[in-house]
Amino acid sequence: MRILGLDPGLATTGWGLIQAEGNRLSHIANGQLTTKTSAGLPQRLASLGDQLDALIAEHQPDSAAVEEVFVNQNPQSTLKLGQARGVVIMTAARAGIDVGEYAARLVKKAVVGVGNAEKAQVHAMVARLLPGAKIAGPDAADALAVAITHAHHLATPRRIA
Amino acid sequence: MRILGLDPGLATTGWGLIQAEGNRLSHIANGQLTTKTSAGLPQRLASLGDQLDALIAEHQPDSAAVEEVFVNQNPQSTLKLGQARGVVIMTAARAGIDVGEYAARLVKKAVVGVGNAEKAQVHAMVARLLPGAKIAGPDAADALAVAITHAHHLATPRRIA
Repeated sequence: MRILGLDPGLATTGWGLIQAEGNRLSHIANGQLTTKTSAGLPQRLASLGDQLDALIAEHQPDSAAVEEVFVNQNPQSTLKLGQARGVVIMTAARAGIDVGEYAARLVKKAVVGVGNAEKAQVHAMVARLLPGAKIAGPDAADALAVAITHAHHLATPRRIA
Repeated sequence: MRILGLDPGLATTGWGLIQAEGNRLSHIANGQLTTKTSAGLPQRLASLGDQLDALIAEHQPDSAAVEEVFVNQNPQSTLKLGQARGVVIMTAARAGIDVGEYAARLVKKAVVGVGNAEKAQVHAMVARLLPGAKIAGPDAADALAVAITHAHHLATPRRIA
């Protein structure tokens, strides 16, 4: 089973693809999709959709997952993030891929073992759990972390409400 | 020139299509796209994208416009709205249609003549400006209002930042 973790953002969307065979996980690929801050919002969203379509066509994931969003930041940031997140989730769904959603606490628990781990700990554990993976950046590491979480929870996927 | 106004929302997205020939505006069609609240978010966003794709294919608008979003509501609502808005703007952009954005104050000024008009006044004026239009609901009326605004401002379109 090929699982695509996604960490949506308008400027940078992290992605990480892993293979799950029972309890064994292995790294396939990861990266960060970016859009030009000099372009208008419609062009940036269209570019994000195009890049994710190409990624899905290339790697043919069986399932996808995103992290639940913190909305206690400023409202303009929440709106921007929501727009990118909508494009990312829709693009995966229209490609016929189920999309799971996990709270940050669950991701930390799945990767580090405790729900209150620091981000740096999560990134360090992602690298240890997926030996040989050259991680493209912090957003790609977050995407791999949610992919790992999804692999652990596939027996009981959580539906996005 | 065929102008598609859009009022994005996850449950209901209003749309309104008008024809602008110089200063003359005429109504073509309007309606409201809906998604089932019983479905998961990925399916709802995919359905919204599918419906808007079909609408654009049927009506072939030359240009589109959305209203600027108020973000002083609760963060969860802002996130949900952002997700629907991202799908709507991306779908129009990927169909090769420019998408303009207008502040609510500008929409009220374009339709009613004053920037602090009540919503009911805006809806009444939309019906008067587009005689013969049977308006599908409040979201369709808002969409027609932003289409009218876009028609008035096409000489100097505002880019979405």
